[in-house]
Amino acid sequence: MFTKEYIFATKGEIDVLDVTEYVTSAVAESKLVSGVATVFTSEETCGLVIMEYEHSLMQDLKQVISKLVPRADGYSHNTIDDDAHSHLRSTLLGSSLSVPFVNGNLALGAWQQVLFLELGKRPSTRKILVQVIGE
Amino acid sequence: MFTKEYIFATKGEIDVLDVTEYVTSAVAESKLVSGVATVFTSEETCGLVIMEYEHSLMQDLKQVISKLVPRADGYSHNTIDDDAHSHLRSTLLGSSLSVPFVNGNLALGAWQQVLFLELGKRPSTRKILVQVIGE
Amino acid sequence: MFTKEYIFATKGEIDVLDVTEYVTSAVAESKLVSGVATVFTSEETCGLVIMEYEHSLMQDLKQVISKLVPRADGYSHNTIDDDAHSHLRSTLLGSSLSVPFVNGNLALGAWQQVLFLELGKRPSTRKILVQVIGE
Repeated sequence: MFTKEYIFATKGEIDVLDVTEYVTSAVAESKLVSGVATVFTSEETCGLVIMEYEHSLMQDLKQVISKLVPRADGYSHNTIDDDAHSHLRSTLLGSSLSVPFVNGNLALGAWQQVLFLELGKRPSTRKILVQVIGE
Repeated sequence: MFTKEYIFATKGEIDVLDVTEYVTSAVAESKLVSGVATVFTSEETCGLVIMEYEHSLMQDLKQVISKLVPRADGYSHNTIDDDAHSHLRSTLLGSSLSVPFVNGNLALGAWQQVLFLELGKRPSTRKILVQVIGE
Repeated sequence: MFTKEYIFATKGEIDVLDVTEYVTSAVAESKLVSGVATVFTSEETCGLVIMEYEHSLMQDLKQVISKLVPRADGYSHNTIDDDAHSHLRSTLLGSSLSVPFVNGNLALGAWQQVLFLELGKRPSTRKILVQVIGE
């Protein structure tokens, strides 16, 4: 097993970062041949998804997220804070991903990347944990 | 490896329970230092998510779920049963979560809890399985 | 650990296939008693969910997906391709699942199946990877 944390800066919502290289790097450092990499973010207003990191698709992704969970919709939480939509978007998109690897290579397709979504309103320093289990 | 099932009572839809202590407890009982806890529910009208268990956010979560998958929307399944929306909500939210732990501590953020969602119409006795793999 | 790839044919969107037997088969072939099966698809316009594979529910699932992410919605990606909705649906539904197994049996409920969703527009040959980790 091998665990490593990666720290990076984000812009405010919605910022999408390709973090695939961190996952690839953790698998390489682990020296394990086959297994599963769990990618996890402990940030409650961020998310992790798998998608092709292509510019126009990122625009579409932001549009879909904004339609499914609008920025303002009479949220109760916004009587005590201002980021209910950030929490809700994070919950729907998810905070963890499991990506198998075989012969040292992630099982990701040629057009699949691991994407970190900054859903919080302000630029931040964020982190993900990559945990590699295998043999 | 360590596996344990936890059983609890729920109220009817939408009931949200904080089950973090079960996951923490399973990791402690496992005596493993680092690894991943897989939380799984075999209930087809329930869900598992990660979110801050804060009262107003729970109201917002219920509102968003109800908007995304309305209780009635001409569902075909409701010609043979009455809970299509419960199944659909469960499918969208997911039945499993992977949470890494390091040095015996779950990698959850300070404001992240593991939440069990009762999406079925009636109060029930439900269960989750927590499986801890690591070293 | 045991890893196996399964290949199958799909019809165009939205086609739902019950792939539970592949997961069950991989767990049996692994000869492991307890652990977790990670199911992953490297196809960027497909998805994996857990749901009861019941005919009317499948109709409802297709309807919900089509409402949440409509086929046409002014997507930027469609200026260079014609399948933005397929990518977006895949991202929201997810590309991986973790299913624990105990005493050789998947922890799935009696009415839970592992479903592969073809979200791409055309019939295709697709694959999933099932990776079994345990003891």
